[in-house]
Amino acid sequence: MTDLPGASDVLDLDSLLSDDERALRQKVRDFTVQRIKPDIARWYEDGVFPVELAPELGELGVLGMHLDGYGCPGRSAVDYGLAAMELEAGDSGIRTFVSVQGSLAMTAIHTWGSEEQKQEWLPRMAAGELIGCFALTEPSAGSDPSSMATTAERDGRGEDAGWVLNGSKRWIGLASVAGVMVVWAMTGDGVRGFLVPAGTPGVTATPITQKLSMRASIQCDVEFDGVRLGPEALLPGAFGLRGPFTCLNEARYGIAWGAMGAARDSYEAALAYSQDRQQFGRPLAGYQLTQEKLVNMLVEVQKGTMLALHLGRLKDAGKLRPEQISLGKLNNVRQAITIAREARTILGGNGITLDYPPLRHAANLESVRTYEGTDEVHTLILGQHITGLSAFR
Amino acid sequence: MTDLPGASDVLDLDSLLSDDERALRQKVRDFTVQRIKPDIARWYEDGVFPVELAPELGELGVLGMHLDGYGCPGRSAVDYGLAAMELEAGDSGIRTFVSVQGSLAMTAIHTWGSEEQKQEWLPRMAAGELIGCFALTEPSAGSDPSSMATTAERDGRGEDAGWVLNGSKRWIGLASVAGVMVVWAMTGDGVRGFLVPAGTPGVTATPITQKLSMRASIQCDVEFDGVRLGPEALLPGAFGLRGPFTCLNEARYGIAWGAMGAARDSYEAALAYSQDRQQFGRPLAGYQLTQEKLVNMLVEVQKGTMLALHLGRLKDAGKLRPEQISLGKLNNVRQAITIAREARTILGGNGITLDYPPLRHAANLESVRTYEGTDEVHTLILGQHITGLSAFR
Amino acid sequence: MTDLPGASDVLDLDSLLSDDERALRQKVRDFTVQRIKPDIARWYEDGVFPVELAPELGELGVLGMHLDGYGCPGRSAVDYGLAAMELEAGDSGIRTFVSVQGSLAMTAIHTWGSEEQKQEWLPRMAAGELIGCFALTEPSAGSDPSSMATTAERDGRGEDAGWVLNGSKRWIGLASVAGVMVVWAMTGDGVRGFLVPAGTPGVTATPITQKLSMRASIQCDVEFDGVRLGPEALLPGAFGLRGPFTCLNEARYGIAWGAMGAARDSYEAALAYSQDRQQFGRPLAGYQLTQEKLVNMLVEVQKGTMLALHLGRLKDAGKLRPEQISLGKLNNVRQAITIAREARTILGGNGITLDYPPLRHAANLESVRTYEGTDEVHTLILGQHITGLSAFR
Amino acid sequence: MTDLPGASDVLDLDSLLSDDERALRQKVRDFTVQRIKPDIARWYEDGVFPVELAPELGELGVLGMHLDGYGCPGRSAVDYGLAAMELEAGDSGIRTFVSVQGSLAMTAIHTWGSEEQKQEWLPRMAAGELIGCFALTEPSAGSDPSSMATTAERDGRGEDAGWVLNGSKRWIGLASVAGVMVVWAMTGDGVRGFLVPAGTPGVTATPITQKLSMRASIQCDVEFDGVRLGPEALLPGAFGLRGPFTCLNEARYGIAWGAMGAARDSYEAALAYSQDRQQFGRPLAGYQLTQEKLVNMLVEVQKGTMLALHLGRLKDAGKLRPEQISLGKLNNVRQAITIAREARTILGGNGITLDYPPLRHAANLESVRTYEGTDEVHTLILGQHITGLSAFR
Repeated sequence: MTDLPGASDVLDLDSLLSDDERALRQKVRDFTVQRIKPDIARWYEDGVFPVELAPELGELGVLGMHLDGYGCPGRSAVDYGLAAMELEAGDSGIRTFVSVQGSLAMTAIHTWGSEEQKQEWLPRMAAGELIGCFALTEPSAGSDPSSMATTAERDGRGEDAGWVLNGSKRWIGLASVAGVMVVWAMTGDGVRGFLVPAGTPGVTATPITQKLSMRASIQCDVEFDGVRLGPEALLPGAFGLRGPFTCLNEARYGIAWGAMGAARDSYEAALAYSQDRQQFGRPLAGYQLTQEKLVNMLVEVQKGTMLALHLGRLKDAGKLRPEQISLGKLNNVRQAITIAREARTILGGNGITLDYPPLRHAANLESVRTYEGTDEVHTLILGQHITGLSAFR
Repeated sequence: MTDLPGASDVLDLDSLLSDDERALRQKVRDFTVQRIKPDIARWYEDGVFPVELAPELGELGVLGMHLDGYGCPGRSAVDYGLAAMELEAGDSGIRTFVSVQGSLAMTAIHTWGSEEQKQEWLPRMAAGELIGCFALTEPSAGSDPSSMATTAERDGRGEDAGWVLNGSKRWIGLASVAGVMVVWAMTGDGVRGFLVPAGTPGVTATPITQKLSMRASIQCDVEFDGVRLGPEALLPGAFGLRGPFTCLNEARYGIAWGAMGAARDSYEAALAYSQDRQQFGRPLAGYQLTQEKLVNMLVEVQKGTMLALHLGRLKDAGKLRPEQISLGKLNNVRQAITIAREARTILGGNGITLDYPPLRHAANLESVRTYEGTDEVHTLILGQHITGLSAFR
Repeated sequence: MTDLPGASDVLDLDSLLSDDERALRQKVRDFTVQRIKPDIARWYEDGVFPVELAPELGELGVLGMHLDGYGCPGRSAVDYGLAAMELEAGDSGIRTFVSVQGSLAMTAIHTWGSEEQKQEWLPRMAAGELIGCFALTEPSAGSDPSSMATTAERDGRGEDAGWVLNGSKRWIGLASVAGVMVVWAMTGDGVRGFLVPAGTPGVTATPITQKLSMRASIQCDVEFDGVRLGPEALLPGAFGLRGPFTCLNEARYGIAWGAMGAARDSYEAALAYSQDRQQFGRPLAGYQLTQEKLVNMLVEVQKGTMLALHLGRLKDAGKLRPEQISLGKLNNVRQAITIAREARTILGGNGITLDYPPLRHAANLESVRTYEGTDEVHTLILGQHITGLSAFR
Repeated sequence: MTDLPGASDVLDLDSLLSDDERALRQKVRDFTVQRIKPDIARWYEDGVFPVELAPELGELGVLGMHLDGYGCPGRSAVDYGLAAMELEAGDSGIRTFVSVQGSLAMTAIHTWGSEEQKQEWLPRMAAGELIGCFALTEPSAGSDPSSMATTAERDGRGEDAGWVLNGSKRWIGLASVAGVMVVWAMTGDGVRGFLVPAGTPGVTATPITQKLSMRASIQCDVEFDGVRLGPEALLPGAFGLRGPFTCLNEARYGIAWGAMGAARDSYEAALAYSQDRQQFGRPLAGYQLTQEKLVNMLVEVQKGTMLALHLGRLKDAGKLRPEQISLGKLNNVRQAITIAREARTILGGNGITLDYPPLRHAANLESVRTYEGTDEVHTLILGQHITGLSAFR
């Protein structure tokens, strides 16, 4: 089956894709069906990130997917989006790994790194041999990076002076399994980025446990306690918050796509169940109250997919602006949560188990809604754009 | 100003239009600004359809806009949609006239009429010299045309036998000012269409009064009491409900566009007001609760507009299917109502007057939501499409 | 019929009322059925306030209903609420008159007036022989009375010095037909209240026209241009905004009840229509999509009514606090609008005419939602109460 | 702290309770704070039902709480409701145990059992020494008990003939730890109930694993494979579905209360967090977007609590009807889910962990929404009540 089932693509959005794009999508979809769906319930129940998938995802060509050179696939933004969508139809945690690896860590190095840094890290990261992470968020300021408390101070003087890192980060994806961390810290010259290899003394990454969301992924508390870095650790090109924000926008773009993958998978699970399950002598799908839910879900899946594709086309044309990404992230995650929750109700009692994906997707999307900008943050970014007035404070 | 203000087109949907399309849109927008907006409050308050606009709309090139030949403009489906959007930014009643004229009455004649019928009626209708109407809905069956009670019986025998029409229609737009009616009636061979010129004995069209919606438009109760028609009154090409349903789908397509015009106008009115109006020493637009509303409105205006444009591109490619139109009508009218209502709240007390458009749009859209298929009808059309099961009964 | 039809009172809230309360309610309900419902469509269409109802409402005992002495009925808060509910089941405009008369104008005089003022005005107002109004809101500050720009300056010196009023008020209910105005103005000692008899030179009251809401009521722009008042015009007891706010809270209490009257009437109209109207061979009421709407409406009608009654019992016990009233007004008006709008959709095309009440109620409630504190104002009042933090600015 | 914090009881609903009721509530609340809250995160994470709580809950007096005699506490319906509310403020799984024990299993025995059956089972169940379960739902018919496929056939002839049970049940709470099962099965005389002691050959109860909801509770698949029962196993008083439905209504009543406990706890967690958490230099609680959420939550917590109390007063007066319970269950669980989800968003990233209750409550309530009648089932029960027409099929 190369194409979306007709029932999931009533608007024939497939016709807006090229043959190459459909082929790429199919390849990733096959991966999801074969490598994620069979085991995701177990990974989720056990709270395990399947680290063994990393090289397979590298081989699939989805790590640093939209970057050029240094072993990166060099695909288009739309290709990247389609891949994110299909992976998140599997699980948000897997797509999150791909985002952290490609949109955050690799993009930071690719955009702001020195030639040496790029050559050292990117090829192994593209291959999935080495996992990267991106340490920006801090415990006391999820939505306000400007209040950053982690510091990097000069360790000595002169050109070859290194740095000493101190502080705490929280919600750092994959940190405990990462080979390299991109760490953002406040210096005398404002926020700068640093590359911290695994095993550097003074770094501790502790996975957050007892999660009700993204259990097949890892988020860590990370402590930097007098971490000494050489001068080569500094990302030379990034000055101020523009550095990490550029990466966040990359990630948000992928999320706008990914969320629709989780939404579509939820819808399809509910549709299939409703067609199979009999109630009062008829399939559930034949009742008005069920059809109303399915239709409302589908309408938003289609609108959100169209929106993601529009953003992708703008991105490939070099015209995508941050407020457009905010609109995409805000809308698509919000709608995806609504869709996944509604899908759950069609599944009845069976819908509370990991046998069916909607409640897992709904739970995962709570993380997705929160990271890379909550609904409120994106609402106020857009509000400022359209009114010219900031209402953040 | 050729383009949408940036604040209303955050996604840069304008970039998806050709120069010609933007020019056409601008022409219609200018008409709305100059000919509809200045007087619409008065027309609405007085319950008057501005019949004098008909020839001007003909000259503007929006009557039977998507039809070829017989004096019709022969524009694309997207052009037609853009025109509907701009006209409904003025008032749903004016756009409704254009829909009834072009999508319903003229499409019926153009699609199912004889060469003589086309030549007789279409040129004058395209010019706005003659108004058409479309009599399908009956008092007791708004959403169920298959239960049609109006009858057309043979009046004599042989090839030159005419017809006798009996029955009642309701909610027939423009009937009291129409020069020709397209009337659908049950015959021994199923539903057939007839052209009934103004003044035919036995026809009575009575405008429905005391309306709270579409007051700048006309809807009539129409009675056919032994109306005798010649054989040439019959539309030769239309057999069964497929005849009127083809026209309904044309109209629904235009509605999907038009509703977004009313929505955008509501949003823009609220945005402008909120930027001007001071509250506690700041513009309303600077408050979080206001920005949240504006952003949510804008998100749906943009998604609905993108959806309409997608339908238009499919239509121009000859690929638009009825369930896709149902999705467009369902979503765009529903969202437009939500948007217009939300816009109203930003206007405070001033929002309950005709000085500002949102409450008028919201009221109008109640009619638009109901005609050409309610939310429930389109939900069940889509539900049947995706599940394969009918839940209508 | 003494009791609510069972279908409208599934929770048997009637059992919470005393026999006297049910009798009072029935009396007002009868009035609504006999004196409001037969003519309300015409009044609304024509934009006419039926001033002839004032003495009838006086005789019915609903003017200044909860006040004691001076010819006032001296009924309980629950009685007053029940009356407001039944009157607004007729039309919000009529209930608004009763609120303006009793909760605003008469309460101001009763609470803050001198013995002479009370004796002069209250008996005629209770009888409906004289209409009062309450001039607080100003054109540029609907939700922020503290920015009041209307001024009252001393006209001379000494004990018998009068006052000169200057300024503008807007949205002043009944002002053009009022025999006396309660006017709030800024003085050197803060906000004070004044009684301004009809015909005082320099006062102009101009009804706001082209309304899409409350057309069977009157709201005016009022200008005070060098209006000279004697010293006896001053309300001696009211100092600062506490004066008008006390009255606003009285009115808000009545609104919490009244809105549920409009909601219940909308629900009952939709229920009756759905039971009568056939669609595809069954009553509309027999379809899942219709039942879902009816049930959701009824649930909120019942919850809102229970809430209003709880507020009434607190008020009669002398324990009702402003934030509780805010909760009641916020919830009940918001829910009533949702209910009226949903009821409209069940009525199909017929629902856009004045033959059925829901769309009229929905339109009216837009005014009700705005006056005496918008949703945002009451949200922030409650927000401050529960968090201890003001977010108004 | 004896009373609810003012911020959680803005309507002063506490004033509607007697001193005894408040004391009972406080006792259960203390239990929740001391015995549930400290360990619930671990139980939930580990998927463990704390069976050791059973005798403690017996001692607390909440098992079979509303039943008289046979060691049961004999408290009022309101008392039972208050206890359910406080326990579910801890966790829905704990409240569910209490419901299964008291409302389902014990009520079945108390209502339909013989004197011998009551004396044998009820005292130990009231003491929490023995756990009961209630086997009604079957794998293929969650919402349609009338299609029951489990059978009980006569095992021999005459008065002392026993029974043979065959069939499958699903979602049977506590079955794997129960000392006695109340099993409903189809016989030649319609549905009858049976008491099946633990260890009866042929009975297998397998806990459902990989749950995303109610992980601190147990639900089982139960198989009956040729289970032979003596004649004394039959509940003599229950004939047809009226038997189990009576118990379901008892349980639904408790759910209407319990759901508001989960909702209130979610609200309070979000309120506390928002007051503590700083964002852009202010507590989150000081922002309009946060206050809007908190207020909307609180409004529904209060309305739902008032509704539950009203149902309790009706029940204690012997006047509570099934459709009223449906309204309570439908509304309160639906609102509780909305509240818990909204609370989660205020907690940001921290809200996805078990450190805070809202996401756990939201997940649990998906089970609660489904069991004892889904939203759709209760909507259609109410729809039938108000329209007189069944729309189930």
